[in-house]
Amino acid sequence: MEFIIINGPNLNLLGKREPDVYGNQSFEDFLTKLKDEFPGVSLDYYQSNVEGELINKIQDAGFEKDGIIINPGGYSHTSVAIADALKAVPARVIEVHISNIFAREDFRKTLITAPSADGVICGFGLDVYRMAILSFLRDSG
Amino acid sequence: MEFIIINGPNLNLLGKREPDVYGNQSFEDFLTKLKDEFPGVSLDYYQSNVEGELINKIQDAGFEKDGIIINPGGYSHTSVAIADALKAVPARVIEVHISNIFAREDFRKTLITAPSADGVICGFGLDVYRMAILSFLRDSG
Amino acid sequence: MEFIIINGPNLNLLGKREPDVYGNQSFEDFLTKLKDEFPGVSLDYYQSNVEGELINKIQDAGFEKDGIIINPGGYSHTSVAIADALKAVPARVIEVHISNIFAREDFRKTLITAPSADGVICGFGLDVYRMAILSFLRDSG
Amino acid sequence: MEFIIINGPNLNLLGKREPDVYGNQSFEDFLTKLKDEFPGVSLDYYQSNVEGELINKIQDAGFEKDGIIINPGGYSHTSVAIADALKAVPARVIEVHISNIFAREDFRKTLITAPSADGVICGFGLDVYRMAILSFLRDSG
Amino acid sequence: MEFIIINGPNLNLLGKREPDVYGNQSFEDFLTKLKDEFPGVSLDYYQSNVEGELINKIQDAGFEKDGIIINPGGYSHTSVAIADALKAVPARVIEVHISNIFAREDFRKTLITAPSADGVICGFGLDVYRMAILSFLRDSG
Amino acid sequence: MEFIIINGPNLNLLGKREPDVYGNQSFEDFLTKLKDEFPGVSLDYYQSNVEGELINKIQDAGFEKDGIIINPGGYSHTSVAIADALKAVPARVIEVHISNIFAREDFRKTLITAPSADGVICGFGLDVYRMAILSFLRDSG
Amino acid sequence: MEFIIINGPNLNLLGKREPDVYGNQSFEDFLTKLKDEFPGVSLDYYQSNVEGELINKIQDAGFEKDGIIINPGGYSHTSVAIADALKAVPARVIEVHISNIFAREDFRKTLITAPSADGVICGFGLDVYRMAILSFLRDSG
Amino acid sequence: MEFIIINGPNLNLLGKREPDVYGNQSFEDFLTKLKDEFPGVSLDYYQSNVEGELINKIQDAGFEKDGIIINPGGYSHTSVAIADALKAVPARVIEVHISNIFAREDFRKTLITAPSADGVICGFGLDVYRMAILSFLRDSG
Amino acid sequence: MEFIIINGPNLNLLGKREPDVYGNQSFEDFLTKLKDEFPGVSLDYYQSNVEGELINKIQDAGFEKDGIIINPGGYSHTSVAIADALKAVPARVIEVHISNIFAREDFRKTLITAPSADGVICGFGLDVYRMAILSFLRDSG
Amino acid sequence: MEFIIINGPNLNLLGKREPDVYGNQSFEDFLTKLKDEFPGVSLDYYQSNVEGELINKIQDAGFEKDGIIINPGGYSHTSVAIADALKAVPARVIEVHISNIFAREDFRKTLITAPSADGVICGFGLDVYRMAILSFLRDSG
Amino acid sequence: MEFIIINGPNLNLLGKREPDVYGNQSFEDFLTKLKDEFPGVSLDYYQSNVEGELINKIQDAGFEKDGIIINPGGYSHTSVAIADALKAVPARVIEVHISNIFAREDFRKTLITAPSADGVICGFGLDVYRMAILSFLRDSG
Amino acid sequence: MEFIIINGPNLNLLGKREPDVYGNQSFEDFLTKLKDEFPGVSLDYYQSNVEGELINKIQDAGFEKDGIIINPGGYSHTSVAIADALKAVPARVIEVHISNIFAREDFRKTLITAPSADGVICGFGLDVYRMAILSFLRDSG
Repeated sequence: MEFIIINGPNLNLLGKREPDVYGNQSFEDFLTKLKDEFPGVSLDYYQSNVEGELINKIQDAGFEKDGIIINPGGYSHTSVAIADALKAVPARVIEVHISNIFAREDFRKTLITAPSADGVICGFGLDVYRMAILSFLRDSG
Repeated sequence: MEFIIINGPNLNLLGKREPDVYGNQSFEDFLTKLKDEFPGVSLDYYQSNVEGELINKIQDAGFEKDGIIINPGGYSHTSVAIADALKAVPARVIEVHISNIFAREDFRKTLITAPSADGVICGFGLDVYRMAILSFLRDSG
Repeated sequence: MEFIIINGPNLNLLGKREPDVYGNQSFEDFLTKLKDEFPGVSLDYYQSNVEGELINKIQDAGFEKDGIIINPGGYSHTSVAIADALKAVPARVIEVHISNIFAREDFRKTLITAPSADGVICGFGLDVYRMAILSFLRDSG
Repeated sequence: MEFIIINGPNLNLLGKREPDVYGNQSFEDFLTKLKDEFPGVSLDYYQSNVEGELINKIQDAGFEKDGIIINPGGYSHTSVAIADALKAVPARVIEVHISNIFAREDFRKTLITAPSADGVICGFGLDVYRMAILSFLRDSG
Repeated sequence: MEFIIINGPNLNLLGKREPDVYGNQSFEDFLTKLKDEFPGVSLDYYQSNVEGELINKIQDAGFEKDGIIINPGGYSHTSVAIADALKAVPARVIEVHISNIFAREDFRKTLITAPSADGVICGFGLDVYRMAILSFLRDSG
Repeated sequence: MEFIIINGPNLNLLGKREPDVYGNQSFEDFLTKLKDEFPGVSLDYYQSNVEGELINKIQDAGFEKDGIIINPGGYSHTSVAIADALKAVPARVIEVHISNIFAREDFRKTLITAPSADGVICGFGLDVYRMAILSFLRDSG
Repeated sequence: MEFIIINGPNLNLLGKREPDVYGNQSFEDFLTKLKDEFPGVSLDYYQSNVEGELINKIQDAGFEKDGIIINPGGYSHTSVAIADALKAVPARVIEVHISNIFAREDFRKTLITAPSADGVICGFGLDVYRMAILSFLRDSG
Repeated sequence: MEFIIINGPNLNLLGKREPDVYGNQSFEDFLTKLKDEFPGVSLDYYQSNVEGELINKIQDAGFEKDGIIINPGGYSHTSVAIADALKAVPARVIEVHISNIFAREDFRKTLITAPSADGVICGFGLDVYRMAILSFLRDSG
Repeated sequence: MEFIIINGPNLNLLGKREPDVYGNQSFEDFLTKLKDEFPGVSLDYYQSNVEGELINKIQDAGFEKDGIIINPGGYSHTSVAIADALKAVPARVIEVHISNIFAREDFRKTLITAPSADGVICGFGLDVYRMAILSFLRDSG
Repeated sequence: MEFIIINGPNLNLLGKREPDVYGNQSFEDFLTKLKDEFPGVSLDYYQSNVEGELINKIQDAGFEKDGIIINPGGYSHTSVAIADALKAVPARVIEVHISNIFAREDFRKTLITAPSADGVICGFGLDVYRMAILSFLRDSG
Repeated sequence: MEFIIINGPNLNLLGKREPDVYGNQSFEDFLTKLKDEFPGVSLDYYQSNVEGELINKIQDAGFEKDGIIINPGGYSHTSVAIADALKAVPARVIEVHISNIFAREDFRKTLITAPSADGVICGFGLDVYRMAILSFLRDSG
Repeated sequence: MEFIIINGPNLNLLGKREPDVYGNQSFEDFLTKLKDEFPGVSLDYYQSNVEGELINKIQDAGFEKDGIIINPGGYSHTSVAIADALKAVPARVIEVHISNIFAREDFRKTLITAPSADGVICGFGLDVYRMAILSFLRDSG
């Protein structure tokens, strides 16, 4: 199975930014552990702050990978274009959010991209990525 | 670890109701398999169509169990009272939905109860319950 | 033909409550006359003030009866859960309201349950129940 | 008893237009059968696509007939002027809709004219007209 | 000076319709008195229930008369087309309403046509027409 | 007959402020002419920029005068308290506006005070005050 | 005088739930003191988390008691059915809330049930119940 | 204990204005009785129709008195400035309304000032002032 | 190929009305040139200010012509009935607007009829009609 | 250059009121320092809690001073009348707010008066007044 | 004449993505044919998924080309920045959409960029680009 | 002190674009003068039309510079992602706008990014940048 994790804007700051909301572990450290846990899985990673580059990557990976795990960050609430891209590719898509976005500011409750995903996981910290992989493996297992 | 699954209205019809949306497996059959998969876990189950009985159960279980996995069904979108109950108890709470509610009718995008949960999982079919257990075990593991 | 009339909250007060809006006949008296008028019809009756018990009854009767005549009362305007239940069962459903709800308070113009019904009749006093039976008979006649 | 059926815009296309929604019987054929069924009833019929001509007819018939059965079609959702006309005349008024408008597009859920009617019937196909006549007869019977 | 009074839907019912709101004098009787009061003024009158015929008349009169006194009735709250017509003609326009529409139902507070008028008078009973004529005469006097 | 004209905020600037909207005549000059035109009428005048002082004056004059002609200026769109005062006094009330407020900014279309008036006149320049007096005289004449 | 206190969902948790908002005294302890303070008053108590059972109790007590003191909890903001029940019974009704609901989340500012009460008291902690009794006694005293 | 009652616009008309809503007793008469009932309490009184003078008084009294009982009248629904003043002073604040504002016009359901109060009492007629004093005494007793 | 151009309210004023928005050429002059440009095309023309007459024409032409080019004018923003008619007929439909309606008043951005069209062209002046014909010819060519 | 600082409601409490939001320096102390810093500038100061008195001052100063620095406090969000006054005078106007109002309650994001200002400065504490003076001097320098 | 076609996000997937909505021809193939059809026209092409790169291209081309044909894709509904760019350049702009966006999801009916265009064409499949060129040629012809 | 000015989309067109709104000076020319005025200040400059590149720069500069002066241009009204980035970095942030955005189109009154800034300055032309620097220097001075 081949997956890709696509992280949106500001997620490269994980560990540095508002640790009470997002935890204090960098995503790179977390990723290393995650790969160790799933040795048989091909797991790519991409992060960009640029909405259109995220779309580029969705378009590329979406025809090659089995699954996309996307955390669209702030674009979750505004990007029709990312939603369109996710719907346009054959890969299965899981949208994840580190925090429980429903318990935060009102504008984070509008989810533009989630209708294009197959499933949504939020509020479990970085573990949302691991849960997404487990779900993909389960489906194909 | 002791958990309880609390299912809201109409989830007792699983397997009979709109199988293209909710699948054609009864919840009882699914539950048996789920228990087999986690032999070391104490897993209670409760279903009611009555909003207030769900609150009763949340209040009872919420002071005794380690975690509540709740699928509030149609009450997700209307019940301030269930949201208050979930916030009032010390147990950890995971809200699950079988289908991706964000890809359905507009009124299903208003989540009244989700802000009271620690995490939310939706769209993976019945597997959302298993993912919730895994998450609880991970936290305590 | 087998039908059931399911009345929601406060309809047990008929005859006692705001007679200028709802008339001054009790539902039991009305029901006796109604049964006399349709001797060949099996006509069950259920009333509850509890949203979830109404759902229980819809689920039971909905797989056994040919038709459900439901007056959801105040739940008409708020209950996603009853709407889900009505959509989940194979019985035909007619929603009735004694008064013309469109000519009353604004909040009574939002109908959550009506989209799950096959037809809606309102504003003819208690006669709405008789009209519903006639319609069921016509369909099957 | 003297009644009039007043049909609004596009109802002259019945039988030709979207048969899965409105059925495939022309209104004229239906009307003939309806008159046969109620030989003692005087039943006029009027159809127009013009909002103001419908008002003209409501004003004329509304002072002469015992009852108006009106299907305002698309004007149901926009016409304050028809609503004013219906309220201005002494005849009893029943508003009918062939389909269950609550189960269709959102804009069909706004009913401007219904508050001016005594009762509303929708969703039973062409049978709504017959049900309206039966109700008028019952009232006067 | 040449004026025209253009009355919209249901104003032909004046004297018959809801006398507590609109008074019990017919418009024809009122018009006779009004003409007597202004012997030097050419005063045409037109009433229609048809939105488009009102537009026709606005277009005709609007290039010939010095002033239009319009009571658009129920179309005041819905007709972009009448508003466009009033703006398209060179005649001065005064919109009148017999009752104080701001003290009635909420939907009567939305005025679509009023922005196309030079002035608006409402709430003085039939006297609003006389006040409009006086204002036209004053302007030209 | 005894009347009072009550002018709200910024109307003391008439003649100085935005002359293309409000004209270039001061209210005092206008008032002198107006009094000359109606020698038999007692016509008081009051202006204040203070919402509460306007209420004081309404309360005083409202029990003594036959009629109040009020131009609430900017308070028309915001003052529940002035609306309450106007409704609390026995004097007849006419609300006037110099410009056609419906043809200006959107926030000027919300009229809080107008429902408390007997009639409303707007858009005829300073002539609205004269029209109001004429209407009062007519009523009592 | 005979009164009943009816408490809605989650109020059985008083003393246990969010003590900074609701205080840390159980309702039972409070009730004992309250009864001691009013020895001549018959004071019943009922609590349920079930919307429909609250309606049942309102219907029963509402025809027998002189006054109902109701704290509808989370149902205050959603229950048309409870509002209907309160309006249907002859007893006087006072709605109470322990905290100042206007200073909390936005959704707590929508009060569906309060229009059916004679008076509303909120924000004084458990003392709201005592204030309600005093008010009832005053009325009848 | 030292308290002040601050009454907002139009409350000086009590006894004269809409007696079916506000009763027919003047506030001065009521106040005399109220003072007699609480001989040991220092009870100041202030009324103004001017929003800013109410703020002045809140600022003065708010640093000197133990409690403010405020009935902001029409300013309840519009005044951010009064809300700011109430929040800025150390005195405890109780907001009162004579009628049940929730059962009246929709615009009276928006409460801008109430979030700045400690408690709110409405719907008990003039007795709301007495209830507020009792609550203050209880707190300090 | 047989087409019809159907123009809605006020388009008969083209050349006379607001030339800076709509140009100063009459539609008749334009039509003559248009026919010259497409000698092999049968091109009917209909204009009415009456909503219902436009529906009549849509119903007639919609079963006979290959294509309808409709400029619904002010009815674009309000007419559910025209939208229903356009959807009911088999002819292809192109909606055109002379000006770029998106760059004008807000209420012109609500398009009720456009969803019933196959395509929409706006903002190119009278050339929108020619572009529509070219598109029809292309499709069939 | 001659300027005036006009402060709205509750700004006289500076130093006493919510020091974490507004700082703990009184405005008078600040003003003394400010004048010292700009010895060549004529700097008047006015504060009132009364909306209408602020308008009076704007009208007076607005024809005499070169610039007005206004902090409308709570009236920023509600006062059409102050906005009208600011637009009516020839002086340049700068609106200032001590705190960043965009980062506070939602109702503080509606700015009614700001469109009448030439520029807006907020969030820099009392320094906003100094920045406004510097800007005026720069313009005229 | 020199034109440029600027395509926004996901339009590089044409032919691959949802062929029932967007057709199954790649844009490159279509472009080749289009150029063949207009041999005398200089026709550049640019596509990007990145909002800001689209702005860059609009800024470059907008000062050099005669016309821009832009399909902003998903950015049509969200991008104030693209709308600003289109308004800032002297080139004429035509906005095109392949499908009839008014007949799709509600969020596609909000057009942020269209007010900056001279004309809009939608719903004719890829032919919208050809129609835009024809219109540009016509204007300059 | 080290600062950076970050300009968003279309600000590179300054001097070319709509000079009546934005002035006719290029930003580069302005920047040269600004640096001359503050010789002791390190002042970087960055402009991009790409939302994500602005985020990249905010993330880089936000951990190195003392202050960020950002003019987010059109992204001010739509970008949750930029708002998140500004909140995530330790640098102080001042948001500036050249024009008074509150006096322009309605959609420019929604400020998504401003809550993440420490202060906001708008409406003073290019001088807003100089005012921001002065404020930073003042704070640190």
